[in-house]
Amino acid sequence: MSDASDAPDAATDADDPEVVEHRTLIVAGTGAAGLTAAIYAARSNNDPLVFEGDEPGGQLTLTSEVENFPGFPEGINGAEFITETKKQAKRFGADVMNGVVERVDDSDRPFRVELSNGDVYTCDSFIAASGASARTLGIPGEDELMGYGLSTCATCDGAFFRGEDMLVVGGGDAAMEEASFLTKFADTVYLAHRREEFRAEDYWIDRLMGHVDDGDVEILRNTEVTELHGSREDGVESVTLVSNPAGHPTDRLDDPETDEREFEVGAVFYAIGHTPNTDYLAETGVELDGEGYIRTAGGDGGGQTETGVPGLFGAGDVVDYHYQQAVTAAGMGCKAAIDADAYLEERARAAEHGQEEETEAEPAAVESDD
Amino acid sequence: MSDASDAPDAATDADDPEVVEHRTLIVAGTGAAGLTAAIYAARSNNDPLVFEGDEPGGQLTLTSEVENFPGFPEGINGAEFITETKKQAKRFGADVMNGVVERVDDSDRPFRVELSNGDVYTCDSFIAASGASARTLGIPGEDELMGYGLSTCATCDGAFFRGEDMLVVGGGDAAMEEASFLTKFADTVYLAHRREEFRAEDYWIDRLMGHVDDGDVEILRNTEVTELHGSREDGVESVTLVSNPAGHPTDRLDDPETDEREFEVGAVFYAIGHTPNTDYLAETGVELDGEGYIRTAGGDGGGQTETGVPGLFGAGDVVDYHYQQAVTAAGMGCKAAIDADAYLEERARAAEHGQEEETEAEPAAVESDD
Repeated sequence: MSDASDAPDAATDADDPEVVEHRTLIVAGTGAAGLTAAIYAARSNNDPLVFEGDEPGGQLTLTSEVENFPGFPEGINGAEFITETKKQAKRFGADVMNGVVERVDDSDRPFRVELSNGDVYTCDSFIAASGASARTLGIPGEDELMGYGLSTCATCDGAFFRGEDMLVVGGGDAAMEEASFLTKFADTVYLAHRREEFRAEDYWIDRLMGHVDDGDVEILRNTEVTELHGSREDGVESVTLVSNPAGHPTDRLDDPETDEREFEVGAVFYAIGHTPNTDYLAETGVELDGEGYIRTAGGDGGGQTETGVPGLFGAGDVVDYHYQQAVTAAGMGCKAAIDADAYLEERARAAEHGQEEETEAEPAAVESDD
Repeated sequence: MSDASDAPDAATDADDPEVVEHRTLIVAGTGAAGLTAAIYAARSNNDPLVFEGDEPGGQLTLTSEVENFPGFPEGINGAEFITETKKQAKRFGADVMNGVVERVDDSDRPFRVELSNGDVYTCDSFIAASGASARTLGIPGEDELMGYGLSTCATCDGAFFRGEDMLVVGGGDAAMEEASFLTKFADTVYLAHRREEFRAEDYWIDRLMGHVDDGDVEILRNTEVTELHGSREDGVESVTLVSNPAGHPTDRLDDPETDEREFEVGAVFYAIGHTPNTDYLAETGVELDGEGYIRTAGGDGGGQTETGVPGLFGAGDVVDYHYQQAVTAAGMGCKAAIDADAYLEERARAAEHGQEEETEAEPAAVESDD
């Protein structure tokens, strides 16, 4: 009876021929956050529809083997984990469809969700679990070696390359942090940065310099990677580096001062940033930080995944710019589904009381119950 | 080189014959939070020792089948999940030992961790993942039927009993919330409360009354359960109820007005509260809320699991009084291990610089590096 699929806006579809379907809850994203939200939402009878975008499974599928997700002592392949979790969400009634959400309109209820193919869906509640995409360089060898010696996550993959020389690419906080972290495992960590100066905080530069003093890290300034060499069988074997004392060497390939060389390393970590996938929220009231990450309520107790827009929740790497682990994303996905359920229940209750008031003309009934 | 197991206090053991062992990191608790923390800490070379207390595996093992933890489309037995995750933590080097932490002394570093058997361990960092214990009534049938029709978690187990009559025991917010949630699945939800008045917020009482108006919930005031009937094979079949219009009927069993009867239900949910296991932190600087839950920093970015005591972190149901799901606890355990690693790295770095200053008398070197 309190099943939120009997939501008051269910009839709206008929009024708008553009709308393919109305759902109680739509989830954007099929990474760990989106699929965990889908499991919980389906089990709470909130009839979720999950849109799977351009990077099905999210960041997790960029890692070959997930060894740190609890419950899998032998590890699990990232893509397999996603497949299994999708199966689990579907088992409880979630629907998963291909579709890139291009725009959410929160100016009225139900929400209007427009896809890049022009289809429009409506929903009473929306969970943004659209993740963040690691930036890449777009150089030869990248597509082939991603997950096979090339990684965008030192925490995920560092331990696979114990004893190897490793190359970190980047000059910001993340690059310093990843380089520092990798000293636990690497023979030597090389850090390639395209300029002379780092844009990282002093804190991180200081910390990195400690590792340099210890002989664990060597810095390659004014240096960029232009090609990755190796194979899926043997992993990364070497990279092509270009350097120019003026910085940004790939902009100065014709400069006689630009030096090009082969450089042997056993693993390469890109730490050139992530971009949260939040363009589709630009016209909503959802508050984003300077980099585009969704700001959620946080704190303790319920409602931690609330955004500034009632009924619209955020979970996973689209919110979390720090931990960015599969299990932390999954935890937030669960919270978002529980928060959405509380919102939908409250909304259904308010609507029922509203109808009672109209029908029975007993406006004071709500207050006098206890 | 930056391996935190080379911690500056490692030599302290020798000074104190009472100390069994010094560890970089000690984790209290082997539920989803503690074991996930252990996996991450072990993979970060922080050499964790995990103490398994009186309720190995935590709340999760009270549930027979875990269907909502992502990655397990067919579900997984709660105890098996814990066994597998423990195996995973050990695989990366975590040690797990039986031991109930009785007292943590944070007045000096390393932390002193005293067990109930008198053993003392020291550590540089400590993760409190000691969970919360659901309160029970201590009545006949309870031990046998826990996880077989008797549950302390409606969100976990409600869906197993679709179409059954269900009994919720309690009169606070949690009882109202669980009863409301269970209307999704139950034929009728009965709520037994030992007094006339509820101590829940008006919000929840109001919401419950909405369900009563709809005929989904029936309230049994001044009523307590004194026995559970059924078997592990067939689950709960009925309960013995006692009622007295003056309330607290089990205190008035000899009162002629006290009525005792059998009552058929297919599932029983206790919602009489949880008690966070934080007694051992009483003498520390860790801030607890009125019910004993640990207050952590929260917010966005790093350090979300920090308590008021540097080096001491909290994760799982010992912190989270609201969501209390296995996957949310696991997510926090991961965060606590990452936060602890950042703390240990920072500490090792500070100690190294301190030593350099003494040895090399170059106190300005740290600042001038960039």
